[in-house]
Amino acid sequence: MGDLTVLIHCADQKGIIAKTTDCIHQHHGNIVYIDQYVDCTKSAFFMRVACEFEDKTSVWYFTKAFKEGPSLQFTMSVEIYTGTDIPKMALFVSKYDHCLYDILSRYKSKEWQVHIPFIISNHPDLNHVADSFGIPFYHIPITKQTKAEAELKQLELLRKHQIDFIVLARYMQIVSPKLIDAYPNAIINIHHSFLPAFPGAKPYHSAHERGVKIIGATSHYITDELDAGPIIQQDVASVTHSNSIADLVTKGRDLEKIVLSRAIKLHLQHKVMVYGNRTIVFN
Amino acid sequence: MGDLTVLIHCADQKGIIAKTTDCIHQHHGNIVYIDQYVDCTKSAFFMRVACEFEDKTSVWYFTKAFKEGPSLQFTMSVEIYTGTDIPKMALFVSKYDHCLYDILSRYKSKEWQVHIPFIISNHPDLNHVADSFGIPFYHIPITKQTKAEAELKQLELLRKHQIDFIVLARYMQIVSPKLIDAYPNAIINIHHSFLPAFPGAKPYHSAHERGVKIIGATSHYITDELDAGPIIQQDVASVTHSNSIADLVTKGRDLEKIVLSRAIKLHLQHKVMVYGNRTIVFN
Amino acid sequence: MGDLTVLIHCADQKGIIAKTTDCIHQHHGNIVYIDQYVDCTKSAFFMRVACEFEDKTSVWYFTKAFKEGPSLQFTMSVEIYTGTDIPKMALFVSKYDHCLYDILSRYKSKEWQVHIPFIISNHPDLNHVADSFGIPFYHIPITKQTKAEAELKQLELLRKHQIDFIVLARYMQIVSPKLIDAYPNAIINIHHSFLPAFPGAKPYHSAHERGVKIIGATSHYITDELDAGPIIQQDVASVTHSNSIADLVTKGRDLEKIVLSRAIKLHLQHKVMVYGNRTIVFN
Amino acid sequence: MGDLTVLIHCADQKGIIAKTTDCIHQHHGNIVYIDQYVDCTKSAFFMRVACEFEDKTSVWYFTKAFKEGPSLQFTMSVEIYTGTDIPKMALFVSKYDHCLYDILSRYKSKEWQVHIPFIISNHPDLNHVADSFGIPFYHIPITKQTKAEAELKQLELLRKHQIDFIVLARYMQIVSPKLIDAYPNAIINIHHSFLPAFPGAKPYHSAHERGVKIIGATSHYITDELDAGPIIQQDVASVTHSNSIADLVTKGRDLEKIVLSRAIKLHLQHKVMVYGNRTIVFN
Repeated sequence: MGDLTVLIHCADQKGIIAKTTDCIHQHHGNIVYIDQYVDCTKSAFFMRVACEFEDKTSVWYFTKAFKEGPSLQFTMSVEIYTGTDIPKMALFVSKYDHCLYDILSRYKSKEWQVHIPFIISNHPDLNHVADSFGIPFYHIPITKQTKAEAELKQLELLRKHQIDFIVLARYMQIVSPKLIDAYPNAIINIHHSFLPAFPGAKPYHSAHERGVKIIGATSHYITDELDAGPIIQQDVASVTHSNSIADLVTKGRDLEKIVLSRAIKLHLQHKVMVYGNRTIVFN
Repeated sequence: MGDLTVLIHCADQKGIIAKTTDCIHQHHGNIVYIDQYVDCTKSAFFMRVACEFEDKTSVWYFTKAFKEGPSLQFTMSVEIYTGTDIPKMALFVSKYDHCLYDILSRYKSKEWQVHIPFIISNHPDLNHVADSFGIPFYHIPITKQTKAEAELKQLELLRKHQIDFIVLARYMQIVSPKLIDAYPNAIINIHHSFLPAFPGAKPYHSAHERGVKIIGATSHYITDELDAGPIIQQDVASVTHSNSIADLVTKGRDLEKIVLSRAIKLHLQHKVMVYGNRTIVFN
Repeated sequence: MGDLTVLIHCADQKGIIAKTTDCIHQHHGNIVYIDQYVDCTKSAFFMRVACEFEDKTSVWYFTKAFKEGPSLQFTMSVEIYTGTDIPKMALFVSKYDHCLYDILSRYKSKEWQVHIPFIISNHPDLNHVADSFGIPFYHIPITKQTKAEAELKQLELLRKHQIDFIVLARYMQIVSPKLIDAYPNAIINIHHSFLPAFPGAKPYHSAHERGVKIIGATSHYITDELDAGPIIQQDVASVTHSNSIADLVTKGRDLEKIVLSRAIKLHLQHKVMVYGNRTIVFN
Repeated sequence: MGDLTVLIHCADQKGIIAKTTDCIHQHHGNIVYIDQYVDCTKSAFFMRVACEFEDKTSVWYFTKAFKEGPSLQFTMSVEIYTGTDIPKMALFVSKYDHCLYDILSRYKSKEWQVHIPFIISNHPDLNHVADSFGIPFYHIPITKQTKAEAELKQLELLRKHQIDFIVLARYMQIVSPKLIDAYPNAIINIHHSFLPAFPGAKPYHSAHERGVKIIGATSHYITDELDAGPIIQQDVASVTHSNSIADLVTKGRDLEKIVLSRAIKLHLQHKVMVYGNRTIVFN
């Protein structure tokens, strides 16, 4: 079969949709879903097309024709994904287990089309969780002195397993530019606040101190600036004056795991496009 | 200028999007936003295209070409709206004023592109609200004996003012088939429950009796079956055991007015398509 | 130490709070949190008091004095729980694993004060999940012919392990009156709809058919009438016309697991009181 | 009749609830609702008791006994409100009308127990709204030069009408310390963001720039520090990449009016207590 997801980004111009859909039509493709967005202030065009072709040969001819035709004509940046590619995802964790449990449960339930070849942690604490789900666990301790060396070990593992993207499931270390450069817009983090409120450490303490009536969680791509990367998903929960910091932490755990898992799913479905520091989420 | 909104519905076939967008492109139109949906189980295709043309002449030529071309080829049901048509909306009320206040406030604030030529009520109570906003108010009492006659008066007013659609803003009368037939998928009601739970009278009493933890409101198009028409919007609010029926009524008022106003806005923007007893809401 | 949770229910009368809190005060207890509710229409009084005493002896004297004093005076129904009692919870499952994974993850994370001595299932499918978390799994198949016998086996296990309450984590069998009578207001079910909408089988199919814009999940105590027991918690999620039944099922899984786990937590904290077919949830 | 609401704040000590409820009981009062909260980290006690007495004489004796008894004994800060006092609320507006319409609609519907003797504005634009609802409107223009003088005029009006609290319904001026000192914890503002994110001017622009997926509104008491006072209520709404700044403004209007009106209602019901920079909201 020939299921394709085509992501297109270019300057806004007349005729992009017409030429693109015509090219699909000419190769006997069927459009299942089309999502499109124009940023009028920046004249930027974005589109995600899910389509089906009769066979792999049609896909091959369409791809060739599209790259030599509309893609060239409109100076597009294009990504094409087939339904048979299963992405490889690496998990980074520290000591908190709720996001890890949630992700591995979905993995075992086959909720997602993904491979998880291994888990990396700077602490040994969650080894038993990895074991109970049968996933290799690499304990790579990190100290100020060993940070550079530890990241080389991480990169080696990532490359050896041809990892496509990384999920920081409450990983309590700042990721260095070297790793970020190797995985641009491909490292998903979960931050336990409603960003941009309460970036950095101990957001639940700050939320309690400020007396907010709603707490949140934010999943975003990691960039060089801490907790300031493109936001993929956010969600919130009500709290009251009677909730202690410990209560916020407990309530927040459910938010964190749901918001992180939603972001992973959107990323896996190629529904997220990054533009500047914002995301277009076709959902 | 030539802003157009085109609504398309037909059986799903290959090439619909390509031919439609190509036709727009050929007439130098620019697609601002395209929304599309295929009901796979019923092979039904739906699309909403917002586009801009250079002038009224281009619009005229495009419309002609589209009706003679893709529309015919794919046996489409097509609706085309221009940005300069301001729809006419009639309000039906009884004794509750919260939805009426909310709608008239938005109207006076020019939040919507709409005309409200008059308000009809089966009770005189809200005449003063209509007066304070400067809208004509027609008191048409209804009893079992006078119902048929009263509806004729209503229809006469609706026709005289060339009303496009009707909003029942907590109108406490069952609308007869005669009116429904005259305004198919064009009478918007607000029901004060999370349908299909608690249809009919006194839903807050039933919700309290059942001990639900969440109440809701539902805006829908009126059909012959009571509270069973196509749903446009729903929203909910949390309640607790400590909320009395009166509390539910009070909380519900805010839900009702927001959910009804959202439905009105979606209808005005031609973002709602009805298919069977369901709506496609392009939002 | 002497942490106590006292649940009180009686007819509404003057002086209940004064006499109760005075009794705590006389025995040098400290009130940490007091929640109270009066159902005015039925003149029914409900209270939950969390308090601390200096030692077990004080607790003993307070309990005696309270039972001989205010409890007798106001004809109260009283439940007293100490902080050192860890309740025993049995899990019933069938083939769906998401609620099971969520519950066992929280259990292993020590999020709750509870023991889970075993899991019962009418299918063998989830044995591997129980194994990976190290919990005994009893496969008790059920057919029309064997249902009575199977329930006797269930009851035997429940009694042998002195189970305090049962959680039906998407258990796809109707529980018989015998089990319900043995565990009144102590069998928690999760139903995958916003009750009272869509009781019974296949609620996501019905929700899709009706075209609702919001789906829900409901946790409730099991009573003899199907899906009609006292509601503990509900939550909802937005859906659109573009969501297939399969999408609703997937979205619903996250709702179900969160809503069920919240109900379990409230039950464990003795924050739920049942009155008629409604719950008082002190939260 | 003798309905009382008693607000109590003092250092946490044993016996406060017992002595307070006993004092009510001794004077034949009936407790309708009791809400209590202890800030354990600061050993601070808060309580709100709604109670009914047989007549005004009982109220008088209770009040005397309470002030000479428990209040003195526990060094309480006490506020007592009777059900017959109708508070006086002043409205400050500028050019946006949505909060004003919402408040005046509720006022006319008698949703709240409140008097609104007048509206003050630094612009003449909303005079017609005040007129249509029959409320006196004072246009007091403010420039840098006239600010001090204008505030004197405001204070004069506030004093003349014995205003109890002020609502800034999208009033686009910074209130000076003189006014804040005259109305401590009695000036309610609505800020159009999810504080502490996006304080100050143009929060919707900042929210759009940052690419958040949820926007919010926050009602809070005004303090000397801009947008940093005690939060009373917050609520949020989902947004997507496709929402322009204008869309956020429109969506935000509904949030703002609902969140502000909820705060006003809580304030009117004496359900808000301020402690440091946080609120205890007994709801």
